[in-house]
Amino acid sequence: MYTVDINCDMGESFGRYVIGNDQDIIKYISSANIACGLHAGDPAIMDETVKLAIKHHVKIGAHPGLPDIHGFGRRVMNITPTEAYQWITYQIGALQSFVKINGGKLHHVKPHGALYNMAAKDKAIAVAIAEAMFQIDPTLTLYGPSNSELTKAGEKIGLTVKHEVFVDRTYQDDGTLTPRTEKNALLTNKEEAINQALMMIKKQKVISVNGIGIPIKIDTLCIHGDGPYALDFASTLYQHLKTEGIQLNK
Amino acid sequence: MYTVDINCDMGESFGRYVIGNDQDIIKYISSANIACGLHAGDPAIMDETVKLAIKHHVKIGAHPGLPDIHGFGRRVMNITPTEAYQWITYQIGALQSFVKINGGKLHHVKPHGALYNMAAKDKAIAVAIAEAMFQIDPTLTLYGPSNSELTKAGEKIGLTVKHEVFVDRTYQDDGTLTPRTEKNALLTNKEEAINQALMMIKKQKVISVNGIGIPIKIDTLCIHGDGPYALDFASTLYQHLKTEGIQLNK
Amino acid sequence: MYTVDINCDMGESFGRYVIGNDQDIIKYISSANIACGLHAGDPAIMDETVKLAIKHHVKIGAHPGLPDIHGFGRRVMNITPTEAYQWITYQIGALQSFVKINGGKLHHVKPHGALYNMAAKDKAIAVAIAEAMFQIDPTLTLYGPSNSELTKAGEKIGLTVKHEVFVDRTYQDDGTLTPRTEKNALLTNKEEAINQALMMIKKQKVISVNGIGIPIKIDTLCIHGDGPYALDFASTLYQHLKTEGIQLNK
Amino acid sequence: MYTVDINCDMGESFGRYVIGNDQDIIKYISSANIACGLHAGDPAIMDETVKLAIKHHVKIGAHPGLPDIHGFGRRVMNITPTEAYQWITYQIGALQSFVKINGGKLHHVKPHGALYNMAAKDKAIAVAIAEAMFQIDPTLTLYGPSNSELTKAGEKIGLTVKHEVFVDRTYQDDGTLTPRTEKNALLTNKEEAINQALMMIKKQKVISVNGIGIPIKIDTLCIHGDGPYALDFASTLYQHLKTEGIQLNK
Repeated sequence: MYTVDINCDMGESFGRYVIGNDQDIIKYISSANIACGLHAGDPAIMDETVKLAIKHHVKIGAHPGLPDIHGFGRRVMNITPTEAYQWITYQIGALQSFVKINGGKLHHVKPHGALYNMAAKDKAIAVAIAEAMFQIDPTLTLYGPSNSELTKAGEKIGLTVKHEVFVDRTYQDDGTLTPRTEKNALLTNKEEAINQALMMIKKQKVISVNGIGIPIKIDTLCIHGDGPYALDFASTLYQHLKTEGIQLNK
Repeated sequence: MYTVDINCDMGESFGRYVIGNDQDIIKYISSANIACGLHAGDPAIMDETVKLAIKHHVKIGAHPGLPDIHGFGRRVMNITPTEAYQWITYQIGALQSFVKINGGKLHHVKPHGALYNMAAKDKAIAVAIAEAMFQIDPTLTLYGPSNSELTKAGEKIGLTVKHEVFVDRTYQDDGTLTPRTEKNALLTNKEEAINQALMMIKKQKVISVNGIGIPIKIDTLCIHGDGPYALDFASTLYQHLKTEGIQLNK
Repeated sequence: MYTVDINCDMGESFGRYVIGNDQDIIKYISSANIACGLHAGDPAIMDETVKLAIKHHVKIGAHPGLPDIHGFGRRVMNITPTEAYQWITYQIGALQSFVKINGGKLHHVKPHGALYNMAAKDKAIAVAIAEAMFQIDPTLTLYGPSNSELTKAGEKIGLTVKHEVFVDRTYQDDGTLTPRTEKNALLTNKEEAINQALMMIKKQKVISVNGIGIPIKIDTLCIHGDGPYALDFASTLYQHLKTEGIQLNK
Repeated sequence: MYTVDINCDMGESFGRYVIGNDQDIIKYISSANIACGLHAGDPAIMDETVKLAIKHHVKIGAHPGLPDIHGFGRRVMNITPTEAYQWITYQIGALQSFVKINGGKLHHVKPHGALYNMAAKDKAIAVAIAEAMFQIDPTLTLYGPSNSELTKAGEKIGLTVKHEVFVDRTYQDDGTLTPRTEKNALLTNKEEAINQALMMIKKQKVISVNGIGIPIKIDTLCIHGDGPYALDFASTLYQHLKTEGIQLNK
């Protein structure tokens, strides 16, 4: 029997500004990556999102990002590995505090946005993130882009690492994501995305944009929590998993 | 023999902006209250200040404030007890993380600025802060204004509480601080402030602005780390304590 | 024949965070109050919203607020009249710049949220706002709560002043708004709100929560641009105005 | 007789955080570049700094930067030309407002930090900045790095352009600044910096780090307003100019 971890970014609202549909999406996932106040989220939202994850028996992860609410952490900034290390430390600690007061357990860390992309390719940033995690709690699990500098850094230092793929993104022949600047970066067709997800789970491979089957290490699948179709996609995927007898890794 | 705890707010710089003289002041105190990034401080400064405190064997405290860098946490805001609870939780957690990676131990929490003043008088805010601390770690010590709603809330919930007085502030006949809006709120004369400090330590009392001796509960003395005379005052006080055989409570 | 000015707060999104439905609501109003980056809005959103207002021949206003994106400018802060004066100056200038590059004309200023409420009752804050406006451009129109310290300050200094009422808020016997903390502060029934609007326009009065007819000075009606029913309400009100032959004051 | 424009960045404090020594430095310069609240400065500081410049008959310039107080606008960010255009527009307008209420005139614009460096080399960013300036007020003067994409863009669109050099920075054989990452980027010796300044003014050239005389277009010299030696350097340079009969271009 197959099992799968489905993760989703959560708690990315800010003050009166709302992003995502956490209350509903949470029913269809097994890992919640919760924003920590630097790129999105705030103490109230972190508290509520941790409570929500505990209620739904979903694994709690920290989702640290660059300190840039206005840019939603998606704007590349010129930072040093030391800064990455310190910003990660800050954010994990802040979230841990909410996990503790709510009686939960912090399970994983997944960097956000530009920090995630930088950590995928920049070894020094990747190592800095892995070191911060390891020093705070060596039992934390690192979620990173499949087969990246980040997953390598995590494995080297001794963290449990989950290789992540994206259900609705397309892949190149070398197994890397098609950049968002390309027209065909996203699978906008729901059926295609569902099929890609099932293939990822069952075969540990994807079909590249050129039609080639690419073996790829897959421990967790990321779905998106915002956008007009997010909820429909999440529940549809969930139904397919049920039908196929694939169990959510809660 | 007398002993005394001298505490000082630290790590209140921000990015390239510098406030205070932490490297020098730290030599003359026993407790550092470290800003947590919402009213002042940032992850880099928190990391460095925790390292500094550990190096000098100074007790490490969190110094959480209102989320207002521009107002330095001194601008009163209309907030709910729940917000106070969540903001405190966030900031303690963030600092704990730096304490952990640097091999130290978080000893105490002292709210900052407007939040400190609100917690002195507003019972619901005081209780919210004490609850957050207790839930995060019941062994944390609360530093609060002597004989205030905050110290009461801390004692009631079961925290260790240190009653704080200010070496360079004047007191009213009822033992409360003269408001900063009054002309005589501050002891600007160094000798007077030193004498007040020594009386506080030895007699557990102050002389009010009207010349009346007021018994007051005193566990820790606050000195200021910024301003042109801060360092001179701190070292002078330190010399007097030495001369008088009063030991710093490190 | 009756004419009426319908105003709505606009441009209150921030970065990737969206609030309101400006593209649609703009069709049904005659005055747009555009956020200026301190409580909401950013340079990109200001630019787009000014363009939108010009395209729809809607009068352009600045909607300055307290510097608090996280609190959406709704959190009361302890500020001085000088600060109010300077923050207003900053925000009007920033918006004027976008008006200029897009070939429009800045028509009015309406303070936002907590600043609006403070200016309604606090004479010194009200005067500071009116002075800033007058010094920047004495031909600017001030939109303020009907019969408030703010409208008085504007009239006294020589600004054109528009007295504002709220279509979906209830009123007390003395003509003041029912505070939002009261259960009956809002008219949630669409028909009632439409009827109140029509009475406001035709009779210059409202029926208080106690059933008493209150004469009230009315130059402009505020409708809300966010919330699930905002667009439906705006278009319904617009149809009623058309049917009744009441002309929008574009 | 020689004349020279000496410019300095000013108004870069923020809230309670102080950078620079504006009150004193202003006596020795002819152009003040005033921060506009996005990388530094705030409405109160802008108001005060404009008043200071007017009092000392110093030309007033806007000093717009990237929206990053924490990074002081020195952190390179991935931005689009449209964003640069909108951020410049916002900041010029905000400063113009303070200039207007204080009865002054906005003379020039000089981008700050990372935005200045990006505009020096990135043509699209440079054009966006020049266009924003031209559309807001075609009589504004652009201060940009001598012989850069920014000065080219300004000249092409029809702005008055002042080519800027740095008194205390060293130059390469091709007339570009030695990057700050190099050890010899700064002239730390006061005499050398003064001599370089005098040569710049009288000969319109610099001696490169390799000892070669490089002709360079020089309309304005930048001095720094912060750091422990800023004031001493500014007053010393001022004395030398006086002695040499070189007049400040006020």
